[in-house]
Amino acid sequence: MYLTADLDISYFGDTARVPYGSRTPETIGRYAEQDVRFLLSRGVEAIVIACGTVSATCLDRLQSRYRIPIVGVIEPASIEAVQVTQTGHIGVLGTKATIKSNAYSDRICSESPNCCVTGIACPLLVPLIENGYSPDDPLVEMALDRYLEPVRTSDIDTLILGCTHYPFLTQTISRMLPNVRLINIGTVLAKRLSEHFPLTASSEKNLVSYYVSDADTEFQAIANSYLDAIRAENVQKINIELY
Amino acid sequence: MYLTADLDISYFGDTARVPYGSRTPETIGRYAEQDVRFLLSRGVEAIVIACGTVSATCLDRLQSRYRIPIVGVIEPASIEAVQVTQTGHIGVLGTKATIKSNAYSDRICSESPNCCVTGIACPLLVPLIENGYSPDDPLVEMALDRYLEPVRTSDIDTLILGCTHYPFLTQTISRMLPNVRLINIGTVLAKRLSEHFPLTASSEKNLVSYYVSDADTEFQAIANSYLDAIRAENVQKINIELY
Repeated sequence: MYLTADLDISYFGDTARVPYGSRTPETIGRYAEQDVRFLLSRGVEAIVIACGTVSATCLDRLQSRYRIPIVGVIEPASIEAVQVTQTGHIGVLGTKATIKSNAYSDRICSESPNCCVTGIACPLLVPLIENGYSPDDPLVEMALDRYLEPVRTSDIDTLILGCTHYPFLTQTISRMLPNVRLINIGTVLAKRLSEHFPLTASSEKNLVSYYVSDADTEFQAIANSYLDAIRAENVQKINIELY
Repeated sequence: MYLTADLDISYFGDTARVPYGSRTPETIGRYAEQDVRFLLSRGVEAIVIACGTVSATCLDRLQSRYRIPIVGVIEPASIEAVQVTQTGHIGVLGTKATIKSNAYSDRICSESPNCCVTGIACPLLVPLIENGYSPDDPLVEMALDRYLEPVRTSDIDTLILGCTHYPFLTQTISRMLPNVRLINIGTVLAKRLSEHFPLTASSEKNLVSYYVSDADTEFQAIANSYLDAIRAENVQKINIELY
């Protein structure tokens, strides 16, 4: 069963220009505006910024420039973290750009000024996942072991997985940090969306049109291995620089 | 002392769209054409494609489309490898796109049909180097240890470091493969260039103008740590999508 709504969904993945997380806010903002203009050209009426990096660096700019609702991941993830933390010490795993932006700590501290936030930039996790390394591969475990050191050695009890990719590593992170509550930005975003678009249980998935800016057979293979919804025939390639 | 020539050099690094090595030949070709058009706008009279991925996937297309000399790394590295191998078995470390192109094996086999080539895609090495991991970091060693397995277990005696980044790992690779001859594409390309532009020893470096498509302070720090020639005031940022 899937949670569904009577919606047509257009998904865009900027595969020709990933990873955003190692770029400057100026470049990320320029790319994100092209991404939004492409989705508007598909006739969408609301946009979900599923990318932690774009949400952290330029959501305000996008919201002020375009009239339709644009929802990011920082606010719902921050509110959830503040609600569940007992120690008041929240960790954030993110890309370099997300951590440098301080978007999570700013938002969390405005919700609950007594909370303390530790941001951890994890620049290798996206390349590891994008290249198909499994969550229990020794390379992934060694990279995670190092990134998670500040969590193990502090009273952090709640950890935001602040990048779209990181939930694929949930099992490994849970095993390394059995007493830490993990916040999945996808889950909290879906909860937030359900306030706007009532979801109901269904055996049918939503109709999704997938668009990417670059695609080869390996992309299809990796995407299919993670997300059974993606099928080769559903993915269209577009030139994002034209938007 | 430096080997120098009476040349002005314009260097362009497409930092807003790296890494090329995980993209399709079509996208790499489109980006490379923009890169060439930018360099032509600076008035250059010859272009060195220092990038292994671009050399492997679209050098012919660039050479046929533009009138000035355009030199890549595949041919000089292949000729050098054929000259030094004793076993006739040559290894190539490259990006996914480079290995998938078969450019090295095609070139090597046309030089010496009895040679055998083993290509090894190393998609994590560029992210490790770009993110400042040192060559003897345990993560780099674990990644290399796995990539070099087909070299250790075969009669490969000559290994082409087929990406601009890999020579930064020369010491670590040499330690792991003490009996294998390493071919640095930068060195063989410089030799090839010296046939066109006579180089002389000098205490002065060539005048280099650096251009990048994205730049933050960390880029400067990492570039300076590898290349003492780059100084912040020499680097200009340009919008490559306009070319």
